[in-house]
Amino acid sequence: MLKIGSLEKLVHELNRLPGVGPKTAQRLAYFILRTPEYSGQLQAALHQVAASVHLCRRCFSYTDAEDLCRYCTDTGRRDDLLCVVEEPSDIARVESSGAFRGRYHVLHGAISPLDNVAPQDLKIRELLERIDAGLAGGEPKINEVILALDPDLEGDTTVLYLAQRLAQKDLKATRIASGVPIGSDIDYVDDRTLGRALENRVEL
Amino acid sequence: MLKIGSLEKLVHELNRLPGVGPKTAQRLAYFILRTPEYSGQLQAALHQVAASVHLCRRCFSYTDAEDLCRYCTDTGRRDDLLCVVEEPSDIARVESSGAFRGRYHVLHGAISPLDNVAPQDLKIRELLERIDAGLAGGEPKINEVILALDPDLEGDTTVLYLAQRLAQKDLKATRIASGVPIGSDIDYVDDRTLGRALENRVEL
Repeated sequence: MLKIGSLEKLVHELNRLPGVGPKTAQRLAYFILRTPEYSGQLQAALHQVAASVHLCRRCFSYTDAEDLCRYCTDTGRRDDLLCVVEEPSDIARVESSGAFRGRYHVLHGAISPLDNVAPQDLKIRELLERIDAGLAGGEPKINEVILALDPDLEGDTTVLYLAQRLAQKDLKATRIASGVPIGSDIDYVDDRTLGRALENRVEL
Repeated sequence: MLKIGSLEKLVHELNRLPGVGPKTAQRLAYFILRTPEYSGQLQAALHQVAASVHLCRRCFSYTDAEDLCRYCTDTGRRDDLLCVVEEPSDIARVESSGAFRGRYHVLHGAISPLDNVAPQDLKIRELLERIDAGLAGGEPKINEVILALDPDLEGDTTVLYLAQRLAQKDLKATRIASGVPIGSDIDYVDDRTLGRALENRVEL
């Protein structure tokens, strides 16, 4: 690396990006130096995102709308179905499946004692308040909460916690099915996935 | 991807970085959204590099110094040895070898008819002027020009071109050796490299 203070600082910042190691960060920095018009365009895009994108105050997805996000204001969606996801990017995944036309709620993570993530660090209080407001009649009533959380330790822990908190409420709580992926070969599916698929078998 | 204009624009810009595909660009954009303090730090680093780093007016490496770069002003280097490289990053590679303590000249590329890179698109005229100024006595005299260009088609073409232009001048022109890499296994070395190693064999 050329010993230039500001260049080394840029490499340091690029190196903080996920999946970008020191060598890649150097390569990116040299590309930025070689392409003078790019730096300003990237700066403008970063600034624009920082200035305009914020959390939706109802579902906590990202939005650049002044008030609620496009999923909260879309009139073609069922108000009584709520899909709970870990990250805003999960909404795009659920949407592209085409199998859900209700509302969303983003927890911004999952309970993980190892990483010091407790229920109060997530948007769980806001979820329960939103559900209670619906049951009390202040907001649209939610009849079913679908937990679309990752099928891993943190997701399972969060599902257990939410199941307890939702048990006394007048609604149905479900979790998306785990099982063998469509188009996969059973030979290559791991034991835990196959075990879950057998456990959650569906009557024909 | 969430349909947010400014977020899609940021993904588009990140996607322009070398080796960053659309999926990686999305992952980086979500990281930037999740880490609010990062965006400003990256913007500041980009701005600082754009504002302070420019080409050295003698060797065309990058520098943030007001006048000449650290390699041109370093008094501990031989003025009569000039190492010609394709890219500024190549200087760092030559430096880390510890085998060269002279001056540098960066061509900013290599001749490539396929990519429409002709000699006049490179810092070749500046190289010849620099050598001539030394021969005329205006600048330190250069006795040897070492071409440390890539051993590929473009590098070979550039070496041939420079050899012609340097032939009439009162100096030695050399090219760094190609051959089997130190620590490698001859079994795994490609034909052209082994051919070059045999051709350039060194007397014991």
